[in-house]
Amino acid sequence: MTIYVINPNSSEHVTDGIDDAIAPMREVSPVPISCLTLKEGPPGIETQAHVDGVVGPLLELAGSLQGDASAFVVACFSDPGLAALREAHSVPVLGIAESAYLQAMMLGQRFGILSLGRTSIQRHIRYLGVLGIRDRLAADLPLGLGVLDLADADRTIARLAEVGGTLRDQFGADVLITGCAGMAQYRTLLEEKTGLPVVDPCQAATAAAIGQLALRTCA
Amino acid sequence: MTIYVINPNSSEHVTDGIDDAIAPMREVSPVPISCLTLKEGPPGIETQAHVDGVVGPLLELAGSLQGDASAFVVACFSDPGLAALREAHSVPVLGIAESAYLQAMMLGQRFGILSLGRTSIQRHIRYLGVLGIRDRLAADLPLGLGVLDLADADRTIARLAEVGGTLRDQFGADVLITGCAGMAQYRTLLEEKTGLPVVDPCQAATAAAIGQLALRTCA
Amino acid sequence: MTIYVINPNSSEHVTDGIDDAIAPMREVSPVPISCLTLKEGPPGIETQAHVDGVVGPLLELAGSLQGDASAFVVACFSDPGLAALREAHSVPVLGIAESAYLQAMMLGQRFGILSLGRTSIQRHIRYLGVLGIRDRLAADLPLGLGVLDLADADRTIARLAEVGGTLRDQFGADVLITGCAGMAQYRTLLEEKTGLPVVDPCQAATAAAIGQLALRTCA
Amino acid sequence: MTIYVINPNSSEHVTDGIDDAIAPMREVSPVPISCLTLKEGPPGIETQAHVDGVVGPLLELAGSLQGDASAFVVACFSDPGLAALREAHSVPVLGIAESAYLQAMMLGQRFGILSLGRTSIQRHIRYLGVLGIRDRLAADLPLGLGVLDLADADRTIARLAEVGGTLRDQFGADVLITGCAGMAQYRTLLEEKTGLPVVDPCQAATAAAIGQLALRTCA
Amino acid sequence: MTIYVINPNSSEHVTDGIDDAIAPMREVSPVPISCLTLKEGPPGIETQAHVDGVVGPLLELAGSLQGDASAFVVACFSDPGLAALREAHSVPVLGIAESAYLQAMMLGQRFGILSLGRTSIQRHIRYLGVLGIRDRLAADLPLGLGVLDLADADRTIARLAEVGGTLRDQFGADVLITGCAGMAQYRTLLEEKTGLPVVDPCQAATAAAIGQLALRTCA
Amino acid sequence: MTIYVINPNSSEHVTDGIDDAIAPMREVSPVPISCLTLKEGPPGIETQAHVDGVVGPLLELAGSLQGDASAFVVACFSDPGLAALREAHSVPVLGIAESAYLQAMMLGQRFGILSLGRTSIQRHIRYLGVLGIRDRLAADLPLGLGVLDLADADRTIARLAEVGGTLRDQFGADVLITGCAGMAQYRTLLEEKTGLPVVDPCQAATAAAIGQLALRTCA
Repeated sequence: MTIYVINPNSSEHVTDGIDDAIAPMREVSPVPISCLTLKEGPPGIETQAHVDGVVGPLLELAGSLQGDASAFVVACFSDPGLAALREAHSVPVLGIAESAYLQAMMLGQRFGILSLGRTSIQRHIRYLGVLGIRDRLAADLPLGLGVLDLADADRTIARLAEVGGTLRDQFGADVLITGCAGMAQYRTLLEEKTGLPVVDPCQAATAAAIGQLALRTCA
Repeated sequence: MTIYVINPNSSEHVTDGIDDAIAPMREVSPVPISCLTLKEGPPGIETQAHVDGVVGPLLELAGSLQGDASAFVVACFSDPGLAALREAHSVPVLGIAESAYLQAMMLGQRFGILSLGRTSIQRHIRYLGVLGIRDRLAADLPLGLGVLDLADADRTIARLAEVGGTLRDQFGADVLITGCAGMAQYRTLLEEKTGLPVVDPCQAATAAAIGQLALRTCA
Repeated sequence: MTIYVINPNSSEHVTDGIDDAIAPMREVSPVPISCLTLKEGPPGIETQAHVDGVVGPLLELAGSLQGDASAFVVACFSDPGLAALREAHSVPVLGIAESAYLQAMMLGQRFGILSLGRTSIQRHIRYLGVLGIRDRLAADLPLGLGVLDLADADRTIARLAEVGGTLRDQFGADVLITGCAGMAQYRTLLEEKTGLPVVDPCQAATAAAIGQLALRTCA
Repeated sequence: MTIYVINPNSSEHVTDGIDDAIAPMREVSPVPISCLTLKEGPPGIETQAHVDGVVGPLLELAGSLQGDASAFVVACFSDPGLAALREAHSVPVLGIAESAYLQAMMLGQRFGILSLGRTSIQRHIRYLGVLGIRDRLAADLPLGLGVLDLADADRTIARLAEVGGTLRDQFGADVLITGCAGMAQYRTLLEEKTGLPVVDPCQAATAAAIGQLALRTCA
Repeated sequence: MTIYVINPNSSEHVTDGIDDAIAPMREVSPVPISCLTLKEGPPGIETQAHVDGVVGPLLELAGSLQGDASAFVVACFSDPGLAALREAHSVPVLGIAESAYLQAMMLGQRFGILSLGRTSIQRHIRYLGVLGIRDRLAADLPLGLGVLDLADADRTIARLAEVGGTLRDQFGADVLITGCAGMAQYRTLLEEKTGLPVVDPCQAATAAAIGQLALRTCA
Repeated sequence: MTIYVINPNSSEHVTDGIDDAIAPMREVSPVPISCLTLKEGPPGIETQAHVDGVVGPLLELAGSLQGDASAFVVACFSDPGLAALREAHSVPVLGIAESAYLQAMMLGQRFGILSLGRTSIQRHIRYLGVLGIRDRLAADLPLGLGVLDLADADRTIARLAEVGGTLRDQFGADVLITGCAGMAQYRTLLEEKTGLPVVDPCQAATAAAIGQLALRTCA
């Protein structure tokens, strides 16, 4: 049995980054953790059409893994297909956005979200409404970076620190969430720069999957 | 130019019912209103997988109509594809659930929803969270009927009246919404039985589309 | 039968501006649209006493038009008398604030309001509470302009662009509402300056009235 | 200087009932308390037109008392004219609904409201939205009684006890509010029947006025 | 290193029940799990004074375990001392109520709580306000049972099934939480009777602790 | 009989400041007002452990005063022990934070809080969630001052005016609350500097206690 972490975009290097981010958890996980790429996905999930479009292929991929899967993690901050996957599978299905929010709610009173660009923010706001937790949001601010810009470490760190400081000082955030699957390598540094705990969504969801497996032993 | 009302399930008789429901509006609409069936859709939209699954075909159908469309109405109470269609099109795109809620908010303070079965209710609740209007919900109660049961007029009317009365008396609803594309023929009767205004979602959305066309004259 | 748009202040030039704003809709309206001035109103509605004080005269004027009216639009952003008019009349009664909010909710996730001065803002906040839609508000900011200042186009445009930009960049607004009956002539320009859709309340309400007339054909 | 408790309906016997209800407070009030009837008011305030219609006369009456008034209490559960009076006067202005809600919020976590009839309930709900405290409402239920029925003590007590029990057992209320200016004489009995604290709005507001006078000594 | 599950009441048999409830998780936990009794606690935590009173002893006990603790779980549904423990300790501190709520939010849209008696319910409501998740509550209903009554399996099961059914049918709950540390043995049976997933708070928190330990491997 | 205002920290000079703040109310209070210091308290209440730790001594002190007390006021802006004291005593128990919030809700639509430092703010936010009034909060901003800094009048006034202006201009506050028991001497000056009403929590709670005594005459 395996925890499958599925990157719903088709970029292998994103999957590799996710694998790096969650690798340390393998030592305590009761089952292997395998990171997969959804080959049918777009290179990056940027529009609502992308979000809706990967649901079908995600359902198919999950279906093909059904006998082997202890849990599924959907590794895109828009949580595509989460509700549909839960309808179809009895094993735990985790979304990295939902998991990040629930994790942040244990670490602080109001979380700030650092999003790559402006377009995804209203999607996040809508989803916080689904989850009924808008009260816990300090603010969601854009970094003004594209996915490719994340390779430029200096620029990324500078922007993360600046926007993180704004979330803390102007909006009262006491915990931060990086609103994208690909920023795990900057997590510790952002914690140092802001003095706040920082949640990486892929790590939060994979840890939550391990917790769910523990819970299922009581079933 | 035409207002296209698209039934995202593949049941022609549902499309026919929608056409009957909105037919009187043709006399005042500045453009023709055409009701279409999404042939790629399932016979009925009952699961989250159905909701997500029709988005792609909906986008394709709307794309093929682009030059001719004054507005699109998505005629399923889960508003599938609404956000994606709005991203892709500059003409007004109306969802029948959103339109029904906004209409009900002008007719009363707390709306009650009459849903066919229990499974769709949590989907509605999630969507009300997206819209940020959960405060306006009195309650959403199941009729315990399937789509096919709607053909049995006596039984349907009896259940509508009973559940409508419960929404009014126990939950304080002062306006009702039939939470399904196929109950327009019972609207007037339900108003009489309960003494409350009743919103049919397809009618509300088509009327809203006509309003949007009026508004666009000022652009 | 006629849609009556009633300006509840006594300034004819405001009524003229409203008439200009909604004029293009006459080509698609199934009935004539007539803009009236409430002669008993104050020159401008600036205080709560003004808001409450025009309700009686509004009820009288509407009563005198009853046989001829297809719908009433109350053209003041405080929606004076809306509840009382709805109690008294079975035809649709639209308030320009409520209509602007509902329209904005279809165009974006969080609306920003541009108010003339600070005093009206808390009134807006209270009303958003009545409507149960405070979650959809990005922010409501004052332009620091009086009604007469609106005649100075350069200054007005400069302030609209500046405050609109603040609503977009600091508060996350993705749609704007001009919180006053007299700014329609700046709507298109504000859209260009900010890149966001802008709702003029009088246009939104008149369009909604046309939609309501369409809906009534199904009654 | 005097605390003026103004009954905005024209029924003297209602004013007499209010006077009886607040009489014991005279022994601790630092100033006299005088209960007045608004002669221009309707016999009872039942519609939104009534609510809006008494604002002008209320403003006039308060204006005529201005030099003598330590505080004003508006003794109608729709709090007519509260915002306008506060704009016009620097002395404390208390509404009996707002005061009852704030009092109840100190006595329990969720308050239940016992309203005479169904028509006033949506007005209450709207006002709770203005105040931003809908979360504290357990439910607002109709007694199905008219103002005149309150003279029938047995029937009134029976209904109060029944509806109070429903608010406690089905809706989780741990404090009750009688949603009308004329039920003070039943307050103690309702407390006994339900085991819950019961707030009479006129008493709550008059007590709050005395508190406000104390606070003003620090100005 | 050890996960310490601390029962803040002094009843050893409650601690034993908790130990039974979480025992199956030991097979997958990366560290031992030890259940402790707070000897200074009252036999049961029933009042707010009890809740506040155990915080000091809890802080002392946790302090004495500091070097050995991987995580702390506070095993009382009022989450006593949670904020204070988190201030004092850098290891994860889990409350069983918070954990149960976050777990339930992944299993359904609206959770129902089955509380022993009425007195604890308002405490729960207040806490849901702290967490900002009142929107996710279907209802919190009393079983009308004391802690000792839980030993009577037939009566307990009958009440659980009855109240669980009410939460599902009248209040729309699609997931249930047993609002007490001592009902784990009835969890599976309640799932069968209601057809809904049921969360046991001690199990949810202990599983969450295991998830937190996994997450800490990435620090 | 006496109103006891209890300072739950052990600093006599804080108690003296509270006594000065409420002294003018003695002329209208029907009973004496006595300000006491909780000798068992810490010099200042800065952490959650402090908040929880004073509850036991507070309950003891209040218990020892029981026969003489007309009402209790807990004079710390974290309202420690409020729920426990209300369980134990039938006389009114007022918290200065709750009282300040309810007072501010009558003076404006959105209150701004001026807190000494950042650490207490999340505690306030949590408490506003308990009270269900987060909608009424404009913002809660830190002054960046310690309790001892309050002795430096120039610096304190400068910071109060600056932060008060930010609350008014950037966050829309129309009433301010000083979020600490020791700033009463600056209240009037802050009103002048900002043009907004300012609520001192100790004054608000003591006034509310006088109001409660008035209300109890009707019991």
